[in-house]
Amino acid sequence: MEPRFDTISFLSDYGTADEFVGVVKSVIRGFAPHVTVLDITHEVPPYDVRAGSLTLARAVPYLCPGVVLAVVDPGVGGERRAVAIEVGGGQSFLVGPDNGLLAAAVGLVGGATDAVELNDADYHLEAPGATFAGRDIFGPAAAHLCNGVPLLDLGDRVDPITLLPGVIPLSREEEGTVVGQVFWVDRYGNCQLNIDPAQIAAWGDRVQVRWTRPTPGSRTARRATAFEALGDGQVGLITDSYGLLAIAVAKGSAADVLDLATGDEIVLVPLGDEPDAPTISTPVELGRKN
Amino acid sequence: MEPRFDTISFLSDYGTADEFVGVVKSVIRGFAPHVTVLDITHEVPPYDVRAGSLTLARAVPYLCPGVVLAVVDPGVGGERRAVAIEVGGGQSFLVGPDNGLLAAAVGLVGGATDAVELNDADYHLEAPGATFAGRDIFGPAAAHLCNGVPLLDLGDRVDPITLLPGVIPLSREEEGTVVGQVFWVDRYGNCQLNIDPAQIAAWGDRVQVRWTRPTPGSRTARRATAFEALGDGQVGLITDSYGLLAIAVAKGSAADVLDLATGDEIVLVPLGDEPDAPTISTPVELGRKN
Amino acid sequence: MEPRFDTISFLSDYGTADEFVGVVKSVIRGFAPHVTVLDITHEVPPYDVRAGSLTLARAVPYLCPGVVLAVVDPGVGGERRAVAIEVGGGQSFLVGPDNGLLAAAVGLVGGATDAVELNDADYHLEAPGATFAGRDIFGPAAAHLCNGVPLLDLGDRVDPITLLPGVIPLSREEEGTVVGQVFWVDRYGNCQLNIDPAQIAAWGDRVQVRWTRPTPGSRTARRATAFEALGDGQVGLITDSYGLLAIAVAKGSAADVLDLATGDEIVLVPLGDEPDAPTISTPVELGRKN
Repeated sequence: MEPRFDTISFLSDYGTADEFVGVVKSVIRGFAPHVTVLDITHEVPPYDVRAGSLTLARAVPYLCPGVVLAVVDPGVGGERRAVAIEVGGGQSFLVGPDNGLLAAAVGLVGGATDAVELNDADYHLEAPGATFAGRDIFGPAAAHLCNGVPLLDLGDRVDPITLLPGVIPLSREEEGTVVGQVFWVDRYGNCQLNIDPAQIAAWGDRVQVRWTRPTPGSRTARRATAFEALGDGQVGLITDSYGLLAIAVAKGSAADVLDLATGDEIVLVPLGDEPDAPTISTPVELGRKN
Repeated sequence: MEPRFDTISFLSDYGTADEFVGVVKSVIRGFAPHVTVLDITHEVPPYDVRAGSLTLARAVPYLCPGVVLAVVDPGVGGERRAVAIEVGGGQSFLVGPDNGLLAAAVGLVGGATDAVELNDADYHLEAPGATFAGRDIFGPAAAHLCNGVPLLDLGDRVDPITLLPGVIPLSREEEGTVVGQVFWVDRYGNCQLNIDPAQIAAWGDRVQVRWTRPTPGSRTARRATAFEALGDGQVGLITDSYGLLAIAVAKGSAADVLDLATGDEIVLVPLGDEPDAPTISTPVELGRKN
Repeated sequence: MEPRFDTISFLSDYGTADEFVGVVKSVIRGFAPHVTVLDITHEVPPYDVRAGSLTLARAVPYLCPGVVLAVVDPGVGGERRAVAIEVGGGQSFLVGPDNGLLAAAVGLVGGATDAVELNDADYHLEAPGATFAGRDIFGPAAAHLCNGVPLLDLGDRVDPITLLPGVIPLSREEEGTVVGQVFWVDRYGNCQLNIDPAQIAAWGDRVQVRWTRPTPGSRTARRATAFEALGDGQVGLITDSYGLLAIAVAKGSAADVLDLATGDEIVLVPLGDEPDAPTISTPVELGRKN
């Protein structure tokens, strides 16, 4: 059999304090020694399928062709199906639980062209318990796909239309404002929104950012392309590295300063252009109305 | 010299915030560029030889043949010996301090067939201080073993019987109950016990779980094979992925809900089978007697 | 084109909870599949150029020849230059922002022999935003250098003398004492000082350690070569694995016990040799004068 891929990109909620990730990699290396495993992250919050799905979607445009192995699996050992999904007519495969985790990523790369349920036990690792599918089912399947095992050997064909969809909230326009939510708070405290810069392209430099949780508040944000263009502590709206709007605070954490968290609803309101003077020295509290 | 292995599995208490792990890997790559290092974990609590020993024992059945490099070493630079242990007549080697860390893993793979103290300085990295044996002694030894250097070149032969044993607590049966302890709390809060499912195979579906620390308490647990088989918040006893019993709480952390930590004593008491009805709706507080 | 290097050593403040590190590695693998990326650490505190610089300086003597990729970049997308620095006449390259991060490491390996600003967009990844230079500029540059792309193809030559220097505080001798500071607190709580053991070589076994933050205090420390040589809880001054003095506490964290943090000023005062008896049983509070 000819090896088909030499890269597995691996995302999970396993953390790195336990030996889970290392054991899955050892099992993969046992089956497919030629493969390099690239970690996307293993610190998805435990069982948080939505967060894992968004992280995977952000990463997938940059991943190497090959196999994506993704495991955030609160239903492990239960009724949810373990699946492998073909995309691009065999350009790559995604392996994981059929619980919505893979849906956004699959959609971003053009949708599923085929799929199987990983129910042929010949391709599993024999195990004393049913709670570590990454080691016993998903990791081995990823390795076998790299080795060139045909997708349909791994189990029963699944109609891609029956795969569980992901739930990605969309933003909406409402009486001249845009209503969205915080998609993701990154390590630096930047708050990515599910809002495309094109949705506010016609607006001026200044945008009011409103929120209701945990307590209602608002701030005037300045549109900018780099953190540096903001005065210290000033709130900015930048186009982030994934092409979405993000709330940022220069040399600070927007999530901390504005007390925002993933999932919080955000309303953007156009305020027009910055008055001529003074710009950088505009007090950052100016727009605060809470 | 013919390379002997191409994989080093690496466990430590170094954490990943400092550069320790990266430096050890760089040193290994300098000596043995053909080797892939697989991280088991580096987040063993600092100096916790017992936790490191148990983590290694859980992982070792799944590791690739080659060298296991394990460093949790409170006595670094002092009287404890640095050792390399041969297992399986040369099928693999374990390298680390002789402080009990390696003992359980060595036992699980059949025991030591040979051993040396790593006291030949020709195989060390010259160093300005004596506190980073992973970089200066253990890492280089692991790399040299991969390169095919004979074990006995690395230092003086050690009688395996003189290696420090590990202390793995055993469970015991006592007046119809089983008394064990929490071996490990994983990322999800599941509490692995040092109790084999066979020890309670003849019992019914319901088992009382009793503990005395931090305050005495008990709960009725239901035996299950998947988290999903438990009602929300219900306490379960599952056979975990290593074949031991673990206390689990569906969609929650057993450690948090029951306030348990590694090392806590647990008593299991048979309660017989579940009454016919109602099953899932049994209030989870039913068995609470504290 | 002949590949020039097969190793990239990677340090950043990206953390591992987000997908940043995985995405950079995927991009590198896309350009240069033959390269192995070794992580030094990604847990430099966000935007802490000084801490990143010191971590890199500690690691650099042990890194493999090749490319060092270092990203701690509060000015991303702004005026700071993105650079690649040649050292050793092409023995290795360092890639990152020109903000002082690379300076100490470059100095330690003999200084820059050439440099460019990474401003040729043909070697960048096209990106929707300007805030992820690791993915879009630095990672690709590191990969291209490994592939053998000439340094001067990547952008305009920069006179190494114009590169931003790092600020590494020096210790000083003052009326028979040595005044320095805490350079680094490691995972175990050891406090590395910017003081060379040679500076106190002529002193006796006992040294008073004084500090002023957060409240003034002092302790008598004993010079030792291993943690084990200290009595439990005793404060020691050891030569650490990088050849600098470090304050250590046997089986404890010096940073916790003495309430010290990175950057705190430390004064060492000679106290002469230990009185003959008792040694190990000397109460650790003896020297406390605060």
